[in-house]
Amino acid sequence: MTQDRGYFSEETSAQAVIARNAACPNPRLAQVMEVITRKLHEAVKEIEPSEAEWMQALQFLTATGQICNDWRQEWILFSDIMGVSMLVDAINHRKPDGGSENTVLGPFHVADAPEMPMGANICLDGKGEDMVVSGYVRDTQGRPLAGVRMDVWQANDEGFYDVQQKGIQPDFNLRGVFVTGADGHYWFKAVKPKFYPIPDDGPVGKLLAALGRHPYRPAHLHFIVQADGFQTLTTHIFDPNCPYITSDAVFGVKESLLANFRKVEDAAKSTAMGFTADWFWAVDFDFVLAR
Amino acid sequence: MTQDRGYFSEETSAQAVIARNAACPNPRLAQVMEVITRKLHEAVKEIEPSEAEWMQALQFLTATGQICNDWRQEWILFSDIMGVSMLVDAINHRKPDGGSENTVLGPFHVADAPEMPMGANICLDGKGEDMVVSGYVRDTQGRPLAGVRMDVWQANDEGFYDVQQKGIQPDFNLRGVFVTGADGHYWFKAVKPKFYPIPDDGPVGKLLAALGRHPYRPAHLHFIVQADGFQTLTTHIFDPNCPYITSDAVFGVKESLLANFRKVEDAAKSTAMGFTADWFWAVDFDFVLAR
Repeated sequence: MTQDRGYFSEETSAQAVIARNAACPNPRLAQVMEVITRKLHEAVKEIEPSEAEWMQALQFLTATGQICNDWRQEWILFSDIMGVSMLVDAINHRKPDGGSENTVLGPFHVADAPEMPMGANICLDGKGEDMVVSGYVRDTQGRPLAGVRMDVWQANDEGFYDVQQKGIQPDFNLRGVFVTGADGHYWFKAVKPKFYPIPDDGPVGKLLAALGRHPYRPAHLHFIVQADGFQTLTTHIFDPNCPYITSDAVFGVKESLLANFRKVEDAAKSTAMGFTADWFWAVDFDFVLAR
Repeated sequence: MTQDRGYFSEETSAQAVIARNAACPNPRLAQVMEVITRKLHEAVKEIEPSEAEWMQALQFLTATGQICNDWRQEWILFSDIMGVSMLVDAINHRKPDGGSENTVLGPFHVADAPEMPMGANICLDGKGEDMVVSGYVRDTQGRPLAGVRMDVWQANDEGFYDVQQKGIQPDFNLRGVFVTGADGHYWFKAVKPKFYPIPDDGPVGKLLAALGRHPYRPAHLHFIVQADGFQTLTTHIFDPNCPYITSDAVFGVKESLLANFRKVEDAAKSTAMGFTADWFWAVDFDFVLAR
C-alpha cells in the first residue's frame, strides 16, 4: 500500500521515485533515470551520509558547475578523473576485430591544422629534443591503407600546447595533418613530449589533492586517424618511461598504446634528418583501422 | 597485470580508479569515493550512454550548478526530486522506538518567529479559510511533555510563504512558536494550506517536465518540535485530500504524517473562535518525541 500510493519509506525509496517516472514520454530518458535513481539510492544507502556530508556533496556539485565557462569544463574533468570519460569512450569504440584502441580526445584538439608533406617537422620553434615518429596504417587484415588522414598534435617539452601559450609558442606549433600514400606509411618530425597537469585549481583539483592523487597526464602524442569506410580512431601513443605512465590522472593509458621511444645515438643520421644534436628520439607505431 | 599497473580497460574500469585512491589520507573520503566510483561505473555500464548522451548529462550537471546563487540551490532541488533528500533524512532520523517520523525541512523556515500564547492565530492578514490545529506532544511511553517548543510555519491559501511575498504578506505571517504546558497540549489558529510548486524554471524543472512529472508539493504544515533530552523532530502534517498527496514532487509524504482535516460546520463554535464564517477547518495531530 505504501508503495502503491507513492508515500516514502527508507526501504522502498528508489521504487517510489522510479514509479513516479512511469508517465515519462521518452523511453530512453525513463530507462536512464531508472538506472541513475537505483544506483544513486544504492550508493546513499551504502554510504549513509550524515546531513553535513550530504551538504558538502551538494556544495561540491554546485562549485563544479560554477567554475565552468566558455573555455573551462570542470564536469568533463570530473568525468575524466573518475575514469568515466574513458569508460564512455570504451563503450562507444569497442574494437572486436582488432583495430587499434581509442583513448580520450582531450580539450586541446584544434581543427584546421595545416596539411604537411610526409617527413615535415611539426615543431615550429626549434625547442625541445628532436624526435622522428613513423609507422604504418593498415586494416584489420594487415593491408596498408592509402589516403588515410592523420591529424597529430602534442604538448611541447615543457608540457604546454600552443593554445595554452599563445604569443609564446607559434600558432599551430606541434600540430599537423599527414595523408598516407599507397604504402600506408607515415612519418614526421616532432619533439619528445612531456607530462603535464590537468587544470587543478578548481573543485576537481582539490578533490584529487584530498584523495592523495597528483594531477599529471603522462607524456603522449595525440592522433586522429581517419579513412573512408573505416571507424575514425582517436587515440594517443604514450612514452612508457614517463614517471606518470602508470598513474595517468584521467586513466587514458591502455597497454596497447605504449610506444617505444628509442634514443638514436647516430650523429650522421641526425645530421641527415636536419637535427643539430648528434642523437635524436625515434618512435615507431603502427595503427590498425577497423571498419 | 593490466590492473596492477593502473592501465585502463572497460572490464576493470572501476577497480583502476579505486586503486588510484589507495593513498587517500582520509579514510571516510576514501570509503565514500569507493562507493561513488563503483556505483557510477555500474550505472554507466548499464546505461551505455552514447557520447552525445554523456555530453547532455555533463551539460545538465553544469547548468544545475550555474543557476545556483545565494537564494536558489538547484542541487538541493535535484536531490529532492530524486528522493535523495528524503533518503538522507530517513537514514539520519530513524525512530526505532516509535517517535513521530521526520520529513524534510524545506527552504522556507525562518529563525526567530514570534513566540505566541496557546490559541493564538498565526494568520496575520485574515486571508484564507480559518483552521484550528491542536494535539498533544508525548514521549514514547505516552507521557505528556511540558516545555516543548513547537515552531510552526505554512504557506497561505494561494501556496506562498511570507518570505516569497515580501510586501504582499505581513512579515512572519503564518509562523509562530508555541510552548506546551504540563498537559502537553498545543493548539493554535491558522488557515488551510494549499499545494504549491517547487521552483521549476531551471534544469530540475525541465527534467521534471521531460519525465512527465508535475512540480507540486501537497498541502502541509511544517513543525519543528524540540524538548530537552529528546531528538528534535522536523516534520510536516499533510492534508490527505490534497490532489497531490500521492505525488509529492519531493517525496516528503509518509503515511504516518497524514492528518485528518475536518470541516466543522458549527456557527456557534466558529463565532466562539473569533472566526467570521459559520464553519472552519479543524485538524488534530499528536506528536511523539524519541530520546
